[in-house]
Amino acid sequence: MTKVTAQLSVSMDGFYAGPQFAGEGDWMDSAESAGFFRVTRWVTDAMAWRERQGFAGGEQDTNSDVVAESFGSAGAYVMGRRMADGGEVPWGEEPPFRAPVFVVTHRPRQPLLRGGGTSFTYVTDGVASAVEQARAAAGGKDVAVAGGGSLVRQVLKAGLLDQLDLHVVPVVLGTGLRLFDADLDLGEKEAIELTPTRVIHAPQVTHIRYEVRGRAPLVLDDRGSGGGPTVTE
Amino acid sequence: MTKVTAQLSVSMDGFYAGPQFAGEGDWMDSAESAGFFRVTRWVTDAMAWRERQGFAGGEQDTNSDVVAESFGSAGAYVMGRRMADGGEVPWGEEPPFRAPVFVVTHRPRQPLLRGGGTSFTYVTDGVASAVEQARAAAGGKDVAVAGGGSLVRQVLKAGLLDQLDLHVVPVVLGTGLRLFDADLDLGEKEAIELTPTRVIHAPQVTHIRYEVRGRAPLVLDDRGSGGGPTVTE
Repeated sequence: MTKVTAQLSVSMDGFYAGPQFAGEGDWMDSAESAGFFRVTRWVTDAMAWRERQGFAGGEQDTNSDVVAESFGSAGAYVMGRRMADGGEVPWGEEPPFRAPVFVVTHRPRQPLLRGGGTSFTYVTDGVASAVEQARAAAGGKDVAVAGGGSLVRQVLKAGLLDQLDLHVVPVVLGTGLRLFDADLDLGEKEAIELTPTRVIHAPQVTHIRYEVRGRAPLVLDDRGSGGGPTVTE
Repeated sequence: MTKVTAQLSVSMDGFYAGPQFAGEGDWMDSAESAGFFRVTRWVTDAMAWRERQGFAGGEQDTNSDVVAESFGSAGAYVMGRRMADGGEVPWGEEPPFRAPVFVVTHRPRQPLLRGGGTSFTYVTDGVASAVEQARAAAGGKDVAVAGGGSLVRQVLKAGLLDQLDLHVVPVVLGTGLRLFDADLDLGEKEAIELTPTRVIHAPQVTHIRYEVRGRAPLVLDDRGSGGGPTVTE
């Protein structure tokens, strides 16, 4: 059954990139990109990611398996406009998605067909519509919300997210673009509850998979449910 | 050998409590406490914690083992003034620490001796001095920085922290008191690097132990070091 999933690499203090690029000079030299490349280093080191980009080399390890699993489970993508714009040139004629991508944007645009099965469809009537169109195109596989953080928050806030994979990178950045920010519209003493269903421990990154349970009041007797814990050293 | 350790229960978005209590009404009814009790629920449910408090019942599970290990490894504590003040009455005549506690404060005060091996010594010449005094008193065991978050940041910022245990609770609070905040004095493209050395996966909380490596520049070729990853489902 199709799930709506999201994943993001974040620092221990919750940033998926450094502070937002002001638009002067080269993004590649910016503090935003320095933070982004630090938290995604485990991805760019992974053979499964490098293969999709047409790059040689890389590590064939559990991190690479996580990347491969992520590509393999996605039947369609939903993407923010900023990420789609930023990737359009570097991804080239054969982007790594190999599936339909639905870009949430305010600017109407004709669909862009690329090689290897990737297409970009520009959706101007909101994130819920993009998720529905992706679901219809996913062929029973998952709909992957590809980011950035603002889009993941919108999907979470709208109650549309089923699963969140956080790749927690062992670094403190101190400042930057946050995955979780103040625009989730949580009430006082209200929270979003999740359940961790899988943890993968590697020296470079801790992969935690969460099932989203939904909004719940913060009450003292709202006890969590059970299940056996396991230890990995 | 004595390590300087810290641990904190945090939400997925990095809060160890709700938004700071304004001081009107009862703290127990505040949004600050609602967040705090949510992220520490796994502790208050644990038999090892309840025993130390003189409470009956609780879960005898891996979470409880984590609490017991934490109490067992601490030879002395360093604590912030706000936490020490807030706990003084509820902890009663036999506080759960059973070890010397060094409280970082601006107000000189005579030491407070309690039952069961707990004492409170008030240190007015800064956090480094408190850590040194705790080290001398720890008898070869660890110095545990007991919080709150501001104190943990001070110890981390001063380069005094060896190990950080984050207990990541699967909840998004949206707002509150952050463990990692802007006062770490990191430069542009500078970060604090750590290495995860142990992960314990439970449905209520993901326990991640980090070894602190220290400040490092965010450079593209600063590759992480290796080691085999393991999977826990």
